[in-house]
Amino acid sequence: PTTKMLIEGKKIADQILQEIKSEVAGMENYGVPGLATVLVGARPDSETYIRMKIQACANVGIKSFHVALPDTISEDALLEEVKKLNHDPQVHGILVQLPLPKHINEESILAAIQIEKDVDGFHPVNIGKLSMRGRDPLYTPCTPRGCIELLDRMHIPIEGKNAVVVGRSNIVGLPVAMLLLKRNATVQICHSKTENLPQCVKQADIVIAACGQARMIKGDWIKPGAAVIDVGTNSIPAPDTQRGYRLVGDVDFEEAKSVAGYITPVPGGCGPMTIAMLMRNCVDGAKRALGVPASASV
Amino acid sequence: PTTKMLIEGKKIADQILQEIKSEVAGMENYGVPGLATVLVGARPDSETYIRMKIQACANVGIKSFHVALPDTISEDALLEEVKKLNHDPQVHGILVQLPLPKHINEESILAAIQIEKDVDGFHPVNIGKLSMRGRDPLYTPCTPRGCIELLDRMHIPIEGKNAVVVGRSNIVGLPVAMLLLKRNATVQICHSKTENLPQCVKQADIVIAACGQARMIKGDWIKPGAAVIDVGTNSIPAPDTQRGYRLVGDVDFEEAKSVAGYITPVPGGCGPMTIAMLMRNCVDGAKRALGVPASASV
Ligand SMILES: NC(=O)C1=CN([C@@H]2O[C@H](COP(=O)(O)OP(=O)(O)OC[C@H]3O[C@@H](n4cnc5c(N)ncnc54)[C@H](OP(=O)(O)O)[C@@H]3O)[C@@H](O)[C@H]2O)C=CC1
Ligand SMILES: NC(=O)C1=CN([C@@H]2O[C@H](COP(=O)(O)OP(=O)(O)OC[C@H]3O[C@@H](n4cnc5c(N)ncnc54)[C@H](OP(=O)(O)O)[C@@H]3O)[C@@H](O)[C@H]2O)C=CC1
Repeated sequence: PTTKMLIEGKKIADQILQEIKSEVAGMENYGVPGLATVLVGARPDSETYIRMKIQACANVGIKSFHVALPDTISEDALLEEVKKLNHDPQVHGILVQLPLPKHINEESILAAIQIEKDVDGFHPVNIGKLSMRGRDPLYTPCTPRGCIELLDRMHIPIEGKNAVVVGRSNIVGLPVAMLLLKRNATVQICHSKTENLPQCVKQADIVIAACGQARMIKGDWIKPGAAVIDVGTNSIPAPDTQRGYRLVGDVDFEEAKSVAGYITPVPGGCGPMTIAMLMRNCVDGAKRALGVPASASV
Repeated sequence: PTTKMLIEGKKIADQILQEIKSEVAGMENYGVPGLATVLVGARPDSETYIRMKIQACANVGIKSFHVALPDTISEDALLEEVKKLNHDPQVHGILVQLPLPKHINEESILAAIQIEKDVDGFHPVNIGKLSMRGRDPLYTPCTPRGCIELLDRMHIPIEGKNAVVVGRSNIVGLPVAMLLLKRNATVQICHSKTENLPQCVKQADIVIAACGQARMIKGDWIKPGAAVIDVGTNSIPAPDTQRGYRLVGDVDFEEAKSVAGYITPVPGGCGPMTIAMLMRNCVDGAKRALGVPASASV
């Protein structure tokens, strides 16, 4: 059965943000959720992401605290900044924008974030609990959580289905694979050393593309009717446009859209969901910290 | 190419124990490695495992400290015992035999073991680092480590190969899948909700069977020439024997041995390797704690 269906990530994300906004309004007697964003240096892409996150906070009623630091900052000084935020009771979530400059050890910085404030969910304890049966992390990484939320809101069944994840990074591929496993999918994890990628993808009812390779996954790799979640966000030259580039996914959308049962567009698919899930995580953390009873949630 | 080859786990484990024994002898100027075993209650299977572990310690020169506790012990009292061992400088590794009685929260007990002494590698931080790219756990869980060691000692290539893990428990299936992924296999994780298990297994160059289902995996599920590591240890009635039961794996060995390229027997395959890897972990931990320089290792 190949109902062709576009997964409108932007629309779904907007709806979720709307839900979160009422939730934040409804908890005002307890306090205001606070998110700290930390940006080291001035990479234009990182600045864009941070701006979008701060804007989303403003839209839903989360107070944001932005810390901008020069890319010459030492690791120790950055650790101090993180510790200050750990102690700030107004801050319920801390997001350190990656990548960090090369002279700073990313692992040390991420591990210094207090587990209760690790809204990105990148701390090894969180990843460990995400992976383990019978354990639950305090936070689930945002992009992976967004992928699952898209499947759920489209009523795409996960349990017992064959899922293939192309990519195994700590922030996307690996955690999304672990989430699919917790939801009882049969999960295959592929990566740059995979020798028979087209055949692997072909068997999947659910494809998560997160390899950062523009349009690599072709239409004829996809099982007819499969659900395709394209996390990839790659900019390719587009001399005909004003900006000179445009964004494409890891899936060849034009080819895939006539084969897949469901597919996300790029842009407008996973990107907006990532931000919505960050807001979700931040409000969840704030509720725990402020002691908002579960019954007060929407 | 279907070279039929038995993977002699017992023999390989004995060789590894021999290597560890000389290593322990070679580090005597620094100190003696110490392993604490904690047994709550008197399950006969647990008592057997503990006895085998203590015997292995004696054989390689590790000092063992056994703590036997009644199964009426409270969670708090058990936590106190673990803390005492955390502080004991003679103890480099702490092993709490699972399963624990139902009134005790396994997660709390395992999380109380100091990470530097977590020789079973079950702490969420260890599992997190095991799963993450670019991170290394202090300890790798013993049975999974044993599976990889068997592949390595048989010179069976892992990188780029299709591996299927049947089972996803925290102590075997999940961590062995993560180890195979770190070694660049394409990894599929199957479990009781998998709908097409025979086909999944059929595609695999490496099969790890860890589902606890006696002889479930049939000969015709296996790709000719595949390497089959059978972790399963199931006792089935055997009225013709003196004990009345015997141990079989999760794979139908009689059928599979003529199809597989390599296969482990049960018993005598993964079981002995688990104990050898526990000794390995314990000595590794002791070396770190005692400050034995890497060059002093064999
Ligand atoms: N929508 C959103 O909000 C977000 C989008 N992204 C996008 O998602 C994509 C992935 O991001 P991220 O995970 O950070 O990227 P990484 O570069 O960290 O990881 C890429 C993964 O893909 C694998 N890979 C690379 N090339 C191939 C190939 N030819 N075949 C199969 N696998 C391959 C790599 O394998 P190996 O491990 O072997 O190197 C690696 O595991 C990017 O396009 C990124 O821009 C990322 C985060 C958020
Ligand atoms: N040699 C050694 O030293 C050791 C041997 N073992 C043996 O290994 C085996 C596994 O142990 P352990 O991981 O602790 O067991 P668990 O019972 O904790 O886990 C079994 C796993 O197998 C899956 N499973 C169960 N039935 C099926 C089925 N019909 N088809 C597919 N998957 C199935 C389960 O799926 P789900 O998650 O959906 O429930 C689960 O993930 C046992 O036989 C055990 O005795 C264990 C430890 C050490």
